[in-house]
Amino acid sequence: MASTLAPPALRWDGARLHVLDQTRLPAHEEVLVLEGAEETARAIERLAVRGAPLIGVAAAFGLAMEVAREPSLGALERAAERLAGCRPTARNLAWAVERVRAAAVAAGPPGLGAAARAAAEQIQREDEAASAALAAHGAALLDAALPKRPVTLLTHCNSGCLAASGRGTGLGVIAALAECRPLRVLACEARPLLQGARLTIWELARLGMEHALVVDAAAPGLIRTGQVDAVVTGFDRVAANGDVANKVGTYGLALAAGAARVPFMAAGPSSSLDGSLAAGDAIEIEERGADEVRSAAGALLTLPGTPVRNPAFDVTPAALVWALVTERGVAQPVDAASVAAIA
Amino acid sequence: MASTLAPPALRWDGARLHVLDQTRLPAHEEVLVLEGAEETARAIERLAVRGAPLIGVAAAFGLAMEVAREPSLGALERAAERLAGCRPTARNLAWAVERVRAAAVAAGPPGLGAAARAAAEQIQREDEAASAALAAHGAALLDAALPKRPVTLLTHCNSGCLAASGRGTGLGVIAALAECRPLRVLACEARPLLQGARLTIWELARLGMEHALVVDAAAPGLIRTGQVDAVVTGFDRVAANGDVANKVGTYGLALAAGAARVPFMAAGPSSSLDGSLAAGDAIEIEERGADEVRSAAGALLTLPGTPVRNPAFDVTPAALVWALVTERGVAQPVDAASVAAIA
Repeated sequence: MASTLAPPALRWDGARLHVLDQTRLPAHEEVLVLEGAEETARAIERLAVRGAPLIGVAAAFGLAMEVAREPSLGALERAAERLAGCRPTARNLAWAVERVRAAAVAAGPPGLGAAARAAAEQIQREDEAASAALAAHGAALLDAALPKRPVTLLTHCNSGCLAASGRGTGLGVIAALAECRPLRVLACEARPLLQGARLTIWELARLGMEHALVVDAAAPGLIRTGQVDAVVTGFDRVAANGDVANKVGTYGLALAAGAARVPFMAAGPSSSLDGSLAAGDAIEIEERGADEVRSAAGALLTLPGTPVRNPAFDVTPAALVWALVTERGVAQPVDAASVAAIA
Repeated sequence: MASTLAPPALRWDGARLHVLDQTRLPAHEEVLVLEGAEETARAIERLAVRGAPLIGVAAAFGLAMEVAREPSLGALERAAERLAGCRPTARNLAWAVERVRAAAVAAGPPGLGAAARAAAEQIQREDEAASAALAAHGAALLDAALPKRPVTLLTHCNSGCLAASGRGTGLGVIAALAECRPLRVLACEARPLLQGARLTIWELARLGMEHALVVDAAAPGLIRTGQVDAVVTGFDRVAANGDVANKVGTYGLALAAGAARVPFMAAGPSSSLDGSLAAGDAIEIEERGADEVRSAAGALLTLPGTPVRNPAFDVTPAALVWALVTERGVAQPVDAASVAAIA
């Protein structure tokens, strides 16, 4: 299926991985060509490729490229460890790497390379199919729940076609709903790295959808005063009880939505669900470098050397989640049983 | 009383007003010399002088300088209208202008100039005394309520010696508490204009207080996970029922504090209390320009021309405020009667 965007966020040519360097958007649409695991790991670490589903797909191809180059179990294990460890919070990275690794191990030499490549290609196909299916589930649920007038949906960070295969997760739901009824999108900028301001705005402009950008701190007040009809995001990892880890700031949006009785929906592929963790507080939260907070777009914002706390994610308790959506359906109300049913 | 800072945020030399250009901090400590109402109004509009109490003091002197130059009732009324209208949300601006205007009108020509000047000087003295008194009230209340160990206080925007006379309001409370017990400050950056990253960090570094900077979106998650012992801010206007208008983002912090049973204190001079408004939703919320959101420190963050919503303030319902503090004491629990008692 062709992406609506050129260049797409990620393209596999059968031997190499072409990714849009998301750190350069929206000003520059620059494609990186990755040829091995270390290059792929670095691209993921510095967020040239980001978004929970997409880093899973990228890591799968990174591992496949590495064992194509050196078809040995040693190279497989080294590359798997490097890739799986490069970001801790999203479930998909370790999940995808393990799936490719297991397929390669099962095939054994000399079939390692072919098995790894087939597994990575399968992960990408499934991710694209998951995006399409979850967008349809989410849009149908929202369409039934929202008032019959033009609505305003608020989203955070980027969960569109730059974050997953196909049209994306949270933003994919919004784009699918926009095919049914008039709507407007408020995009939170998502400091510190501004994935909302840089990436979601770029996607919304290309899709021709009515939108406006807000600072993260403005969203709770807009929700409280009736200016938002629903909040829709992706997710990076979901615990067995339905607690959701997602981009830092999601918890504050969910709290505000709950206080205003506005639906808060989180959508993503079932590969982001982690039944091995009972609750969200067991999810490891990545703490990133201080310079991300001290600056924006290269400009220093504070005194040099200012101490910083920079958690990249937060956890939203299941009780604040109106609905969780995967390609397998909808969990609503969100609890261990309903989450297990969409895993 | 001498400020601990050189240069101070605002200094009256008897004829002209010297203000630190806060748009240039923290990189440059540049003093502007203001000589009339129009100059003062422009400095307030572009946030060279900001902070609810401080813009009241500045506007009072702006009006006094104008009538010193042209001691007529016409000039008085024109300048009063210009100054009172330049920012809508903080109570202090219109309050201070009206107080100087009324004093000048009561004196009548030829005493206009002297009366206006005396009223402005009185407003500044009272604001400085209010800062000292409210800091003592707030620090005593927090000291009694917080656990007997080093604590972490979170603050938003800037409510220190750059926002008011003396040591400030919310940050003044924190500085006073730091004289009693060890504490650490988390400062929210306060996008879009980054008064936290630029101004509060500058103050905390000069005061030698342990601190760290966080993006606004990170604060709710840090509060939820027990990493914050209290949230302390200033306020721009308080309605009769105790609803608080303050820098955009305050509502989200108060919600998170409430959910985690962490005290949320808002502190300011009684001149910020507005008994004429029954509830917070009657407070006019200033919407500022789109370029503030599209950029930071001069760097473009999104696509040029991106539509923006930019409310500069939000309203926190009284039920989420653990304590309101003015120079006259503490309102706790916060309701119409307790607020009237500190007005």
